[in-house]
Amino acid sequence: MKKVKVFITLKESVLDPQGQAVMQSLHNMDYQNVKDVRIGKYIELEMEDSADVAEQVDAICDKLLANTVIENYRYEIEEEVHS
Amino acid sequence: MKKVKVFITLKESVLDPQGQAVMQSLHNMDYQNVKDVRIGKYIELEMEDSADVAEQVDAICDKLLANTVIENYRYEIEEEVHS
Repeated sequence: MKKVKVFITLKESVLDPQGQAVMQSLHNMDYQNVKDVRIGKYIELEMEDSADVAEQVDAICDKLLANTVIENYRYEIEEEVHS
Repeated sequence: MKKVKVFITLKESVLDPQGQAVMQSLHNMDYQNVKDVRIGKYIELEMEDSADVAEQVDAICDKLLANTVIENYRYEIEEEVHS
């Protein structure tokens, strides 16, 4: 089995109102040293081994997980160790 | 400046209906080899340097970003390089 960690982030040029709201809350809580907040998604997939896992993850991100007009994605594939 | 990457995930024992819905969609798209999907949050904070950044991030996660009853969090603190 493979464990795939997918990180989806808004592109630099896209406004992040959710992140701005969180930053405002942090400022209200006296964390003035927080200068920027960007909120994305973190998705863990558990997949059966196959030769083309990376290609499949690319396709899954492009088709379903990410909106590539406004979001970037990157991923890490790890071998899952069963004890 | 420090760049802090925060990963928030549901605890193992907590059901993830959003992840199950994504997995069902992937199965409908013929990705039968996806055996589990868990959906979390990925948050990037940009913070001014200070001696207690790690403590501050812990407090921020506990108080605002994560619901520690059902979620775990971890984070990485990186030095931000300005070119």
